[in-house]
Amino acid sequence: MKIYETSTAPNARRVRMFLAEKGIDMEYVQLDIAGGENLNKEMRSKNVTTKIPFLEFDDGSHLGETMAMCRYFEETHPETPLLGTDPLQKALVEMWQRRVELYFFNMVGMCFQHTTGYFKDRMNPIAAWGEEAGKNAVAFLDVLEDHLADNQYLAGDYFSAADITLLCALDFARVMKIKLQDKHVNLQRWYEQVSQRDSAKA
Amino acid sequence: MKIYETSTAPNARRVRMFLAEKGIDMEYVQLDIAGGENLNKEMRSKNVTTKIPFLEFDDGSHLGETMAMCRYFEETHPETPLLGTDPLQKALVEMWQRRVELYFFNMVGMCFQHTTGYFKDRMNPIAAWGEEAGKNAVAFLDVLEDHLADNQYLAGDYFSAADITLLCALDFARVMKIKLQDKHVNLQRWYEQVSQRDSAKA
Repeated sequence: MKIYETSTAPNARRVRMFLAEKGIDMEYVQLDIAGGENLNKEMRSKNVTTKIPFLEFDDGSHLGETMAMCRYFEETHPETPLLGTDPLQKALVEMWQRRVELYFFNMVGMCFQHTTGYFKDRMNPIAAWGEEAGKNAVAFLDVLEDHLADNQYLAGDYFSAADITLLCALDFARVMKIKLQDKHVNLQRWYEQVSQRDSAKA
Repeated sequence: MKIYETSTAPNARRVRMFLAEKGIDMEYVQLDIAGGENLNKEMRSKNVTTKIPFLEFDDGSHLGETMAMCRYFEETHPETPLLGTDPLQKALVEMWQRRVELYFFNMVGMCFQHTTGYFKDRMNPIAAWGEEAGKNAVAFLDVLEDHLADNQYLAGDYFSAADITLLCALDFARVMKIKLQDKHVNLQRWYEQVSQRDSAKA
């Protein structure tokens, strides 16, 4: 089993951090996405969306999408659960993981793609949308700040995949100068706590 | 337990269809999202993102995000599983559910919001991005068409939440004139099959 990734990409870090929390060793193959190595015919045959990271099983089949890979490892390695342990906790992890993804991380990603033109050889950047997406991401930090006033982690006192998503998204957001502000005291407390975990270095 | 929703909204239909497949009865409260009823102080205290649908438990706590609600019902009512039954199947459902969401449904939604100005009282529509998002959605139909050449449903021979997401997204996409084309023979076969399920009327 191996994972194709680009080590600097935020979704790649999400999976590495998830595996580190569970103590799962993995073989990684680096792809130069800036140079389009993920777009060639061989890679498309493995991974139709061309998004990284993706997993290659020993039988030659593949699994894409960050959270689908995390779901697979949660099911096959249930120790150190990161997606919740009872129905309500599983649902709360899913809720916060998705909120961070939809309203922050995806907005940060669109801000990056549409304002920097990093992938302009394979998409049509709309700068005005990139700027708007960045504003949406910044605005959602206030929602997270309020939530973390009453919660140690995103899903209460339980460290989960939702926290991994937010850490990786926040660190990536610095590229677009999207950062925590002085008013985000709860987010800063959370950030210091989560970024000090051993898995954050994965 | 009750769900706040707007019956015509595609995410509301996703949850209703998921519950119908499982045979779960539910009380629904309608919100006029066009009129901003989801934005008032009372509703924001229940549901900070203001997105519908969301679930209200009998103890007064709440759960938002369509797939978090589906996860909760999958865990509490495991009969008629819609999110998979073994690690690989669960991962494949998650993969296709997310692909349909990220590369089709979310693009359709952004096309709607940014080209029609339907929510212009609460967001800044960028028409050029809406048009681009619509093109992205149309392009992804070809990926789904290829996949369904070898698969009865999105996750192989297993009907799942991924199919529910695609059906609701496709029906909603008609508003933007995004439709299956003559070349999409596999998608059309799939569409006829899935839209004839009793749950599709929920």
